[in-house]
Amino acid sequence: MVNNKNKKFQTVGIYSSINSTKVSYISSQIEEILTNLNYRILIPKSSSIIHKNNHRRLTDKYIKNNCDLMIAIGGDGTLLSASRNFGSQGVPILGVNLGNLGFLTDIAPEELTLSLQKVFEGKYLKDERFFISADILNSEIKLIALNEAVIHSSSMAQLIEYELSIDGNFVYRQRADGIIISTPTGSTAYSLSGNGPIIHPDVKAINLLPMFAHSLNTRPLIVSWDSEIRIRIGKKGKASLSLDSHSQIKLKEGDEIKLSKSKEKLTLIHPTDHDFYSACRNKLGWSVK
Amino acid sequence: MVNNKNKKFQTVGIYSSINSTKVSYISSQIEEILTNLNYRILIPKSSSIIHKNNHRRLTDKYIKNNCDLMIAIGGDGTLLSASRNFGSQGVPILGVNLGNLGFLTDIAPEELTLSLQKVFEGKYLKDERFFISADILNSEIKLIALNEAVIHSSSMAQLIEYELSIDGNFVYRQRADGIIISTPTGSTAYSLSGNGPIIHPDVKAINLLPMFAHSLNTRPLIVSWDSEIRIRIGKKGKASLSLDSHSQIKLKEGDEIKLSKSKEKLTLIHPTDHDFYSACRNKLGWSVK
Amino acid sequence: MVNNKNKKFQTVGIYSSINSTKVSYISSQIEEILTNLNYRILIPKSSSIIHKNNHRRLTDKYIKNNCDLMIAIGGDGTLLSASRNFGSQGVPILGVNLGNLGFLTDIAPEELTLSLQKVFEGKYLKDERFFISADILNSEIKLIALNEAVIHSSSMAQLIEYELSIDGNFVYRQRADGIIISTPTGSTAYSLSGNGPIIHPDVKAINLLPMFAHSLNTRPLIVSWDSEIRIRIGKKGKASLSLDSHSQIKLKEGDEIKLSKSKEKLTLIHPTDHDFYSACRNKLGWSVK
Amino acid sequence: MVNNKNKKFQTVGIYSSINSTKVSYISSQIEEILTNLNYRILIPKSSSIIHKNNHRRLTDKYIKNNCDLMIAIGGDGTLLSASRNFGSQGVPILGVNLGNLGFLTDIAPEELTLSLQKVFEGKYLKDERFFISADILNSEIKLIALNEAVIHSSSMAQLIEYELSIDGNFVYRQRADGIIISTPTGSTAYSLSGNGPIIHPDVKAINLLPMFAHSLNTRPLIVSWDSEIRIRIGKKGKASLSLDSHSQIKLKEGDEIKLSKSKEKLTLIHPTDHDFYSACRNKLGWSVK
Repeated sequence: MVNNKNKKFQTVGIYSSINSTKVSYISSQIEEILTNLNYRILIPKSSSIIHKNNHRRLTDKYIKNNCDLMIAIGGDGTLLSASRNFGSQGVPILGVNLGNLGFLTDIAPEELTLSLQKVFEGKYLKDERFFISADILNSEIKLIALNEAVIHSSSMAQLIEYELSIDGNFVYRQRADGIIISTPTGSTAYSLSGNGPIIHPDVKAINLLPMFAHSLNTRPLIVSWDSEIRIRIGKKGKASLSLDSHSQIKLKEGDEIKLSKSKEKLTLIHPTDHDFYSACRNKLGWSVK
Repeated sequence: MVNNKNKKFQTVGIYSSINSTKVSYISSQIEEILTNLNYRILIPKSSSIIHKNNHRRLTDKYIKNNCDLMIAIGGDGTLLSASRNFGSQGVPILGVNLGNLGFLTDIAPEELTLSLQKVFEGKYLKDERFFISADILNSEIKLIALNEAVIHSSSMAQLIEYELSIDGNFVYRQRADGIIISTPTGSTAYSLSGNGPIIHPDVKAINLLPMFAHSLNTRPLIVSWDSEIRIRIGKKGKASLSLDSHSQIKLKEGDEIKLSKSKEKLTLIHPTDHDFYSACRNKLGWSVK
Repeated sequence: MVNNKNKKFQTVGIYSSINSTKVSYISSQIEEILTNLNYRILIPKSSSIIHKNNHRRLTDKYIKNNCDLMIAIGGDGTLLSASRNFGSQGVPILGVNLGNLGFLTDIAPEELTLSLQKVFEGKYLKDERFFISADILNSEIKLIALNEAVIHSSSMAQLIEYELSIDGNFVYRQRADGIIISTPTGSTAYSLSGNGPIIHPDVKAINLLPMFAHSLNTRPLIVSWDSEIRIRIGKKGKASLSLDSHSQIKLKEGDEIKLSKSKEKLTLIHPTDHDFYSACRNKLGWSVK
Repeated sequence: MVNNKNKKFQTVGIYSSINSTKVSYISSQIEEILTNLNYRILIPKSSSIIHKNNHRRLTDKYIKNNCDLMIAIGGDGTLLSASRNFGSQGVPILGVNLGNLGFLTDIAPEELTLSLQKVFEGKYLKDERFFISADILNSEIKLIALNEAVIHSSSMAQLIEYELSIDGNFVYRQRADGIIISTPTGSTAYSLSGNGPIIHPDVKAINLLPMFAHSLNTRPLIVSWDSEIRIRIGKKGKASLSLDSHSQIKLKEGDEIKLSKSKEKLTLIHPTDHDFYSACRNKLGWSVK
């Protein structure tokens, strides 16, 4: 995270995956602030916001080539889709949270004007994150996730069987409900519910967390982000692949999924007082007393 | 578990939920042993075994009224269905394991003759287990489980919300992938994969184990088997109820499930050298060195 | 817990293991209330409270024979010592908490008058708890604990080795930092820090929780309160036995400790609105939203 | 880990921290192999091995300046002391295991001749590890650990209180039995007993694992190896600092310990078939079936 000589943004997008009155209201407010500061506003076609002003809705391709900063209004879901759609294409993302402070959204609606002004003056922190790429071998399917890929039984009451290898080395064969493969960004999301460790965003690592493993001696396994992880689906049960709780793909016996750091990167824009540990205290209820 | 003055069995059933050559072979062997000892053999309609001899297949009702002992050949699945179908109707169950020793099956195929002989001489242990009854209020649905009831999100990547109360007292509202409500018998089954405690079969308790709970401060909660547990489904996500990984019922917002000790009981018949802790060592790899 | 036809108390003791201004102040207030209601006040020798009035300090034996109810002012430490000293001798204990609500203390200083009045009118709940007895075989040492017995390495950086058997059956040999043997009462104390399950006080069970076990396949083990647990110390490392974080006894290789339900019982007195799950929510931060 | 153009060793040390017949026997065998291959053998003063030949015992300083490779015979304890004494001074370490394969020792006594020959032909893998440096501020005390630093209560039954900050940011205040600060190397040692994640040696990270924390919402926290971790001891309880279960230093209220990557590095020498995941399978019992 660097703080000086920051680039000043020229064209600013506004996006949400939520269609609600509150989002519309916050969006209007941001539009006003941007208009008063003479910024050009870009609204992507894929945004769910209903605007009072009659904006032309722009294609993702146009956004990619012309947008300096995308303001995403919402919770984790909005941030994740903004990151996949625009962030992975090189557009920095700034998150405005709805209601509760999140790990990815850190501008509160009640301090919009001042917070945005500071960002536009170049006072912000850049925070680079990586995506996990999930590539189903011998298929056209290749998707990315900012938080996690999950390979899971498709039927509630059944184990799946899979074989894990890393960098060409066999690791183990396992029966479990599934396995979570998460980035440090994802370590405070779904993985945390499964008792996974919290990994600071600066750590260049990927976490593999078996879910309800049949054997008692499995533990979370953390490997370098340079690792090539391969998971081959065995014959027991029916499996699915899910990315950021979003895309969902059916897998069949013998399918092999390659998981690795994606070449795309995400730049998150934070206010200068952003602090990962403070977000942990707020979200996880860590003690300050 | 008592060992003396045991009742001697007269009519003996043979059952499996598996249709395989190995099961047929073991079944034939058991039929021979029973015939040589002049026992009457009962074969339930619901059994999957293909017999060489042309047995009349009997209804569950007939079995219930006429069978002194049901020999179940297979793994946990066969034991669970034998327990629900016949055990809950008062027929004691004796498990012959296929391949690996289980927690519920403890006669090995390679020592069938001697083991059965001892049991028929009255040398055996009786081990009483209880079922959990899951009753969806304002519906006709009431089912029992020997291991566990699971309330779980129907869609892989979504939380459910529910409210737990016990004996009329509110306990908590929770967002999670689901919750396992298990008997001591079930504590060494699915619950164990979710890091649940091992509960000796003699403990009169029910274990509540949240699965991938959203908050970090949940723990397994163990309550008396006399407790009336109620779980009301909230509005987030779609939920299902599953019993012993078998029956599966869709739940909707506002559904309330009452979980409690069933009035039905199961009597398991064990060889006299049966020992719960020895089964733990074998199945869980506990050290003896 | 029953609520009707409760015995009315005549002679009431006041006790704390803490010597502080706040405890003195609360004690004075309780003395006034008791005096106004014409109760006889008994102050044990072992209490740390400094009283303004010149009370005669009474022996534990006198207290045991003459005290109908002991009011213990403080936190868990005070409750534990009051329970061991007087509760185990048949004197019911009522806990007044200092500062934070506890699992054992549930009268808040700011509602003393009303709460005590109700109790003295016979409006209270009786809650029976059991102690764990730890008996070092071939020695005179036999002690009780309300929460837990802990067998632990005496030196910070060393494992101990022990062999566990239950009701005469060998369970396992283990290398670990130690093992916690706790009552349901203790399940919300030290055991909870070690990821142990929460056990409702009505469950008749004992929890065995290995601490930093060397093998990965250990789990909490819950057995009936009727079980006779034996732990024999192996040759690796130096061990100690501690009861309720209080008594501490050195153990040597070959020592065998018998742990079982003590014949002494404790009666806790609660206000009628006492609710275990409400205490869980308050102390553990469970969600009500 | 690179495999080609490896430096060939000239002078080879032999070391163990164990004094046993088996170690002496293995050492004699290694001496013979080295003599036959015309290597110069160096024996450090600090080694516990009793040699038949009358070796001159050399100072650690001499070893540091003249030894190309140190062969350490034993288990983890020997490897840890060899690493601290010679490894941290730039001498590569090759581990010969006694009995069980370890994570750090991977030449088995029964294949000594062939394994050593290959290493001496330059066929080996170099594996660089880092130490954690623990620096008690305002004192002369600065020590290193290959596995972990542990800050722990000095008295068995008492919590300590500490405040954690990382890179100048406050993280949390906590009451716990202690905290483990481990390297990836240490992630398969003590930390693993406390349910810590397994971290591949290539990951540039440090793991912070609270031990028996009083609050339920703590999790392992993994930070970049560049982080400066500070722990300030609070007023509750008495604490000690231990490094690799070896050095032990008393801490007092207000003491602040700085923990960070040490500038010293360790080079481990492995046979070319060394594989971290294979060591995991062997040591942790992961399934291959």
